[in-house]
Amino acid sequence: MKKLFKFELIKKDGSARLGKIYTPHGEIETPVFMPVGTQGTVKAITKYHLLETKPQIILGNTYHLYLRPGTDVLKHFGGLHKFANWELPILTDSGGFQVFSLANSKEKGKGHKPEVVLTEEGVKFKSHLDGSWHFFTPEKVIEIQEIIGSDIMMPLDICPPYPCDYEQAKDAVFKTIRWLERSKKAKKNNWQALFGIVQGSVYEDLRIESAKMTVDLDMDGYSIGGLSVGEPWEYMYRMTEVVVPLIPENKPRYLMGVGTPENIIESVDKGVDMFDCVMPTRNARNGTLFTHFGRVNIKAAKYKLSEDPIDPLCDCYTCKNFSKGYVRHLYNAGEITAMILGTIHNIRFYNKMMEDIRMAIKENRFRQFKKEFLDRYSST
Amino acid sequence: MKKLFKFELIKKDGSARLGKIYTPHGEIETPVFMPVGTQGTVKAITKYHLLETKPQIILGNTYHLYLRPGTDVLKHFGGLHKFANWELPILTDSGGFQVFSLANSKEKGKGHKPEVVLTEEGVKFKSHLDGSWHFFTPEKVIEIQEIIGSDIMMPLDICPPYPCDYEQAKDAVFKTIRWLERSKKAKKNNWQALFGIVQGSVYEDLRIESAKMTVDLDMDGYSIGGLSVGEPWEYMYRMTEVVVPLIPENKPRYLMGVGTPENIIESVDKGVDMFDCVMPTRNARNGTLFTHFGRVNIKAAKYKLSEDPIDPLCDCYTCKNFSKGYVRHLYNAGEITAMILGTIHNIRFYNKMMEDIRMAIKENRFRQFKKEFLDRYSST
Repeated sequence: MKKLFKFELIKKDGSARLGKIYTPHGEIETPVFMPVGTQGTVKAITKYHLLETKPQIILGNTYHLYLRPGTDVLKHFGGLHKFANWELPILTDSGGFQVFSLANSKEKGKGHKPEVVLTEEGVKFKSHLDGSWHFFTPEKVIEIQEIIGSDIMMPLDICPPYPCDYEQAKDAVFKTIRWLERSKKAKKNNWQALFGIVQGSVYEDLRIESAKMTVDLDMDGYSIGGLSVGEPWEYMYRMTEVVVPLIPENKPRYLMGVGTPENIIESVDKGVDMFDCVMPTRNARNGTLFTHFGRVNIKAAKYKLSEDPIDPLCDCYTCKNFSKGYVRHLYNAGEITAMILGTIHNIRFYNKMMEDIRMAIKENRFRQFKKEFLDRYSST
Repeated sequence: MKKLFKFELIKKDGSARLGKIYTPHGEIETPVFMPVGTQGTVKAITKYHLLETKPQIILGNTYHLYLRPGTDVLKHFGGLHKFANWELPILTDSGGFQVFSLANSKEKGKGHKPEVVLTEEGVKFKSHLDGSWHFFTPEKVIEIQEIIGSDIMMPLDICPPYPCDYEQAKDAVFKTIRWLERSKKAKKNNWQALFGIVQGSVYEDLRIESAKMTVDLDMDGYSIGGLSVGEPWEYMYRMTEVVVPLIPENKPRYLMGVGTPENIIESVDKGVDMFDCVMPTRNARNGTLFTHFGRVNIKAAKYKLSEDPIDPLCDCYTCKNFSKGYVRHLYNAGEITAMILGTIHNIRFYNKMMEDIRMAIKENRFRQFKKEFLDRYSST
């Protein structure tokens, strides 16, 4: 018998919250950062080194996993946990963000140009891999996530781009709510949690309306979606401030796709419990590394002879074993090993930051921690 | 005080030899395979996972390390061991092979077209990285390797392409010998070993002459160079048979750049002690994996639902943790993690094969092992 999803609020320090999420695959201390494992692996790292960074949960992308390896493979293996030999909790997004953001993207991808047709029933989209057409409905997306077997599922939602006019944002809010009702009805497994996603772009009244309607549906947790899509940070913070007080204290709050260390600390201060972002892994692959003294472009000539670790305050495998000079050389020589070492470091940086955040809340000194962290982070 | 280089012949089983090499950075049991770490790291693997494959020594490329990070960086860090935080022995090649093979290569590289001008004094060459001109002399190459601080150095030699006419091969043999004399004279550190390299293309009389002249110079060990450059395997084996008996029993024999599992087992049977090859690491990056039942293209559709490990007889991290179906998915999804997992597996496959070879020699059953291994390896 699998344990059911539960959130426990342990204590507050201002609006910052220390909590614990119980899932069938183990407990998660919050605030938590979830490394992104889009296609069934966090990129450029082995499970061994990932576990060493002390993650508590990883995020998988329903859109990508549905297209590849596909639900036939995932069903055969008995879900993503078994397929990837991953014991810890998994959260999956709904694919909504990918469907819309890939179609809205101005980037010329290597693959096929994604296209999307939105109806009340669902969303028809063209695969970025082979140009084939697919149809996601709220029910279908729940079914896929039940095959994946994630501990926390997201319902299909509509994530508008930024900027987005009021009418389009309003339509997205109401369609997202109607889809959430259908998602809830479609859900079969009681051991998988289902969150609701608050939309509303940068419009306060829409965010409030969306939050109230979503909370009325009594979900396991609440996501704030549609942010970190290019809007100024002030909007992200303001929308978070507007939404958070409307979410019941006994439910976790997840700010999707966020963000930089500054974004995360600021949002924890506003009462957010969960975060995910590709930033630490993506940046690692191009040589941008996070340190307690700000971001570092490790390829820079000034590190050529540096015998120091990337971050003297970091306890990761990379920092314990290698110098900036060596890691710089590996990046400049185009070695895959460089990306591995950078990925290990950046993920550990994020996880360590969350550990420090939790400790600070526990000891009632979050605001002091925040100030010290941000002062040091912007010192160079 | 660093320990000096020494080779100890432990026992023979037919012509196959069990031995031990003592170096300043530790002991090496032979026959040994040396994973290639061209630019200061074995590609697509961390030191942690590499050590898990139980390597005894890695190979570095003088040509690449000289160009990048450069001798100024290596000198600053106190050599490659300290730069890469690598405690085990290192062997460096001389750069001769790279200089000639890059210039002879018909491949259109991404970088600058290498060019080469050979004189009695040395070899002038154009960097494949930035088109700048450099000059390698035997003395210069020893100096670079003394900065690298490798346990075993190779002298600058002339490695002709295959096919190669008799006069060109003869000229390469005699120039290589004259350069070896200069290399020996130039060598300053008594703790670094220096091998001699036997050349002679596929001409038996040149190989014999080269071997005798090289042995007369009383080197720490003897390499057989200029093979595995495109010639049929029969030539490689025949040249090895011709050269090996001319090398004193109390010195190690190193067949450079070789090779496939079949090549290695066949050459051990002819009395070779040391091998290196990019094959396990390069193949891993494109999805060709070695198993006891032959090579596997892991991307193939037939492995889509396979829950088996890549090789049921392998004890590597990848085989202990992941299925063929999962690894196949990662390769097809273009994940760097796939290359890491494949690299771990292939290096461990080679190292395990060498362990099994040594055990078979120890137990006087090498020929039986060879037959069983090759029968199984070619069974599918």
